[in-house]
Order: sequence, then structure tokens, then C-alpha cells
Amino acid sequence: MSRKSKEEIAVIYKQMQEYICKALEAGDGTGTFKVDNWTREAGGGGQTRIFQDGAIIEKGGVAFSAVHGPTPKKISNKLGLEPGIFFAAGVSIVLHPFSPMVPIIHMNIRYFEMEDGTHWFGGGIDLTPHYIVPEDAAYFHQKLKETCDSFDPSYYPKFKGWADSYFFLKHRQETRGIGGIFYDRLSATTDSHFQEILDFSLALGRLFPEVYTHLMQKNARIPFGLEQKAWQGLRRGRYVEFNLVWDAGTKFGLDTNGRTESILMSMPPQAEWVYQHEPLPTSEEAFTLIHLKKGIDWLSYTP
Amino acid sequence: MSRKSKEEIAVIYKQMQEYICKALEAGDGTGTFKVDNWTREAGGGGQTRIFQDGAIIEKGGVAFSAVHGPTPKKISNKLGLEPGIFFAAGVSIVLHPFSPMVPIIHMNIRYFEMEDGTHWFGGGIDLTPHYIVPEDAAYFHQKLKETCDSFDPSYYPKFKGWADSYFFLKHRQETRGIGGIFYDRLSATTDSHFQEILDFSLALGRLFPEVYTHLMQKNARIPFGLEQKAWQGLRRGRYVEFNLVWDAGTKFGLDTNGRTESILMSMPPQAEWVYQHEPLPTSEEAFTLIHLKKGIDWLSYTP
Repeated sequence: MSRKSKEEIAVIYKQMQEYICKALEAGDGTGTFKVDNWTREAGGGGQTRIFQDGAIIEKGGVAFSAVHGPTPKKISNKLGLEPGIFFAAGVSIVLHPFSPMVPIIHMNIRYFEMEDGTHWFGGGIDLTPHYIVPEDAAYFHQKLKETCDSFDPSYYPKFKGWADSYFFLKHRQETRGIGGIFYDRLSATTDSHFQEILDFSLALGRLFPEVYTHLMQKNARIPFGLEQKAWQGLRRGRYVEFNLVWDAGTKFGLDTNGRTESILMSMPPQAEWVYQHEPLPTSEEAFTLIHLKKGIDWLSYTP
Repeated sequence: MSRKSKEEIAVIYKQMQEYICKALEAGDGTGTFKVDNWTREAGGGGQTRIFQDGAIIEKGGVAFSAVHGPTPKKISNKLGLEPGIFFAAGVSIVLHPFSPMVPIIHMNIRYFEMEDGTHWFGGGIDLTPHYIVPEDAAYFHQKLKETCDSFDPSYYPKFKGWADSYFFLKHRQETRGIGGIFYDRLSATTDSHFQEILDFSLALGRLFPEVYTHLMQKNARIPFGLEQKAWQGLRRGRYVEFNLVWDAGTKFGLDTNGRTESILMSMPPQAEWVYQHEPLPTSEEAFTLIHLKKGIDWLSYTP
């Protein structure tokens, strides 16, 4: 078996975008994706698909890109690479639901290669409930664990810890949500290992709409009022803070003339800020806040 | 005449906060400031005053702080300083009005000193109209120019250019608003020069409520509808992007365990994002967008 070329990986990831979009349209039941193609002056381009007129999803996108060309200096410096021609392909997703009872979700799978053969895979899925529901958190982590375990039993504990560290708002001392998995710089030692890591990213791609469809349909009909919408606005504010202040991909993209609209596709439709907001100690909101911590094992969680 | 001590500057800036708050309460006509005192573990503290129940101002604050102690490594590295005891005092203001016809405004004056005598002043005022009104922009810049000119005729052109460069969203290729003035690292050569720079910052402090009261009262009664509110939401989104992605003070504060709530006092009450929003070419919104550029001389502007 020979190793997949970068062109083949671009095709496979493009198909994954298509697969996920179809599945999300079915899961939402009403919305469709609007297609926005773009090209990159220095090489490559992408297709950003923007969700619209959804029943459950208010704003979101599924972005595919495959870019290449001389490695910009800021990028080679940051990655510790010699100058040369790079290639990068990936699928990125953020979905913001109308209902505060449905969680925000994010997924990314990506592949990076230099002309000298240096290469790696990266990615992750993480869930940001406006209101943490331990049962949903356990379901989400169980699904991630099963997928990880089918490749390598060391993946889930390692990548779960990595997500806890990565999706963290240092200035709030809060995790973004209940975490998930995050991995980066996964390089192959052999051709079959390469295929395995690629397959792992594709398994995550297929898992994503399955998991989110379950969470949408389980929670979208739960009643809510203005109080819950206000809380959603504040949590969306935190999502904005994470993405603009701490998210390495976002910061880096904006600083290296990435495609702004595709990068900021992750922004919520609306967000709110209130000075020193503190929920009542016994409220659902306070329950959520005290669970925005690193290191919670949702699989064995007991309240 | 001997040079003012850091303790005296702290007192003077605290009085300036008081002065500005009183003047803004009078200008708004209804709102009052809620006082929030805080202390810094490693030395010093501050008082954040949060505007509430305003007629014109929806969310905003006037923050005073005077902090001191061993210089955190990240700060001395960034400023290119030897380790030692630092002192920093300042007043920071951001005001977000209800009406999209009233501009957002920001002001900051600050003083920094090391135990070895190294010291400097910094500050600035800039205006972010949701809708650019050339007459208001000319008024604003004229007032800034007069104040600058009464100290040094080189100040206004220099500090106006600095503001154009500083208040710039690189990833949008947009200025935050119509600029204003920005200065930093203004050090004194003699005691009388020190007094002069201090006086300059105080002149800006006194100018601030005068200018903003004029702009509030001129524009707060202009009718607007949902379309203008939606545009305001998008412009507030850009304000969030500037502050969290590019503003040196914000980024630095969040990264060095600054007081998060006081730093993020600058966030609007609410903000919105729409994928690839583009106003109609002949609209007021498009007029604003094409004027979010560096180097516009508002004092001699003709449409």
C-alpha cells in the first residue's frame, strides 16, 4: 500500500465536507448550506459552506481548504521549519444553535506537509454547552473514546487532556466547554501508519454529524425563556473571547493574511457582555460555571 | 518647581476620574456610576466605575488604577526594561451608547515609572462612529488639534498618524473608526517638561467629557430603526475584534493576569456577526466603510 498523496488527501477531505454537510442538513431538517468558493493568491483555495435558514442551527459553517505555496516566514518560524513549499488541507466546523439548550460544537481535521516530506495530522472536536448536562457530556465523551480506542487506546486519555489544556480561557480560568479531544503533529512512521492516522481523522469526521444530530434532536425542543437566552448571549461572549484571544488557529490566520471571513465563520451570530455577571449560587448557570474546569472525567462523573 | 511624585500623580489621576464621571453623568442626564474597588495582590489596586441606567450611554466604564510591585517578567521583557520595581497609574474609558447614531468613544491616559527613574506618559482618544458624519469627525479632530497645539504644534500631526496606525484592524484592512490621537513613551527631559506632559494628559482628560457630551447631545435624538440597530451590532462586532485581537493593552493585560473584568469593561453590551456582510454601494453604511481608512485629514475633508 502506498501513501496517499496530498492531492488525494485534499479530495478525501473535500468529500468529507460534502458528507458532513448532507448529514447536518438532515439533522437540522430545514437549513441548507450556501456555497462560497475562494482562491488564494499564493496558491490553492477553498470552499466555505455557510448554514442558513436552519430550524435548529442559527449560524455556522463547514469550511474546506487546500492551500499551498512558499511557506510564509511567520508560519515557518512558528512551526520551526526550514523555508520551502508547504501544503495544508483541512475541514473546520463551528455550529451555533438558536436554542440555549443545544450546545455549540466545533470540529477540525487537518493535514500539513512540506516538500521535504515533513508532515503531520491535527484535529479535534469539542463541545460548548450553554448549560452543562452531565448525561450529554458523558455521551459525547463516550463516543469520542470509542472512536479513539478503535485506533489506539492511548489516544483518548492523551487527546482529552490536550483538549482540556487547549480549550481554556486563561483570563477567566474557565474551560471553553466540556472539552473533547485535541491532537496535533501526529506524524507517520510507515505507510500503513500514515493510512491509520488519516483514517482516524476520517472516523472523527463521520462521528461528528452523528453526535451532533443526537444532541440537537435530544435538546432542541426543551422550552426556554429570556433568562436562558440572556445566558446564551454571555456564553457566546466567552466563545468570542476564546477564539479571538487564545485560539492559535484564529490568531495565526488573522495575523498571516488568512481569509478573514472563513476564519471568523466561528463567531456566534450575536454575543453579550455584562460587567461582573455572577449567577445565583444554586442556579443552573452556576452549575455550568463550576464545571468549566480542566480534568473532569465525564465518563465516571457523579454529581 | 519639583517633579510630581508617583503618589501625587495617582491622586491627580484619581481626581480626573472623579471629574470625568461627574461630567458624563451630567451629559447623559440620567445614568450614574456604580463604584467597584479592587486590590492587586502584588501591590496597588484601582476603582472601576461602571455606568448604569443611562439615557444615552448603554454600557461603559471609567477605570482608575495605580499598581506597583516587582515588574512581572513578561512586562519587563516586552518593555525592554531591567528587572525592578514598577509603578503604573492611569484612567481608561470606553462608552457604548444605545443609539447607533451616537459614536463609541475611548480615552486613556497613563503614567509609568521604574524605580531607576525611567518613566513615560502615554494615552489617546479615539472615536468610533457607527455611522461616520464628516461634520462630527471634523469637530472631534479640531478639538483634539486645539488641545495638542496649546502644548506643542508637532503633537497633533504626529499623534493623529499614530492613532491611524494603532487603531487598525489588519485582518479587515479597516481603521476602528475615525481615529483621534495616540501617544506613548513620552518622557521628560526636565522637571518643567515633566509637568508639561502631565498637564497635556490632564487637558485631554478635561477635553474628553466636553467633546463626548457635545456628540451625545447632538446625535442622541436622531431617529433610527432596526436596520441601524443591526448595523450597530456589526460595528460593535468589529470593536470586539479590534480589542481582543489587536489592542496591545487588552492582549497584554489578559496575558499577564490583569484584572479581567476591568480590562473587558471595553466590550460592548452586545455584538453581532454575519458572514460576508456587504452594505449596498450607495448606502450610509457603505459611506462609513469607505471612510475607515488611514490618513484621512478630517479637518480639510470635502465629500
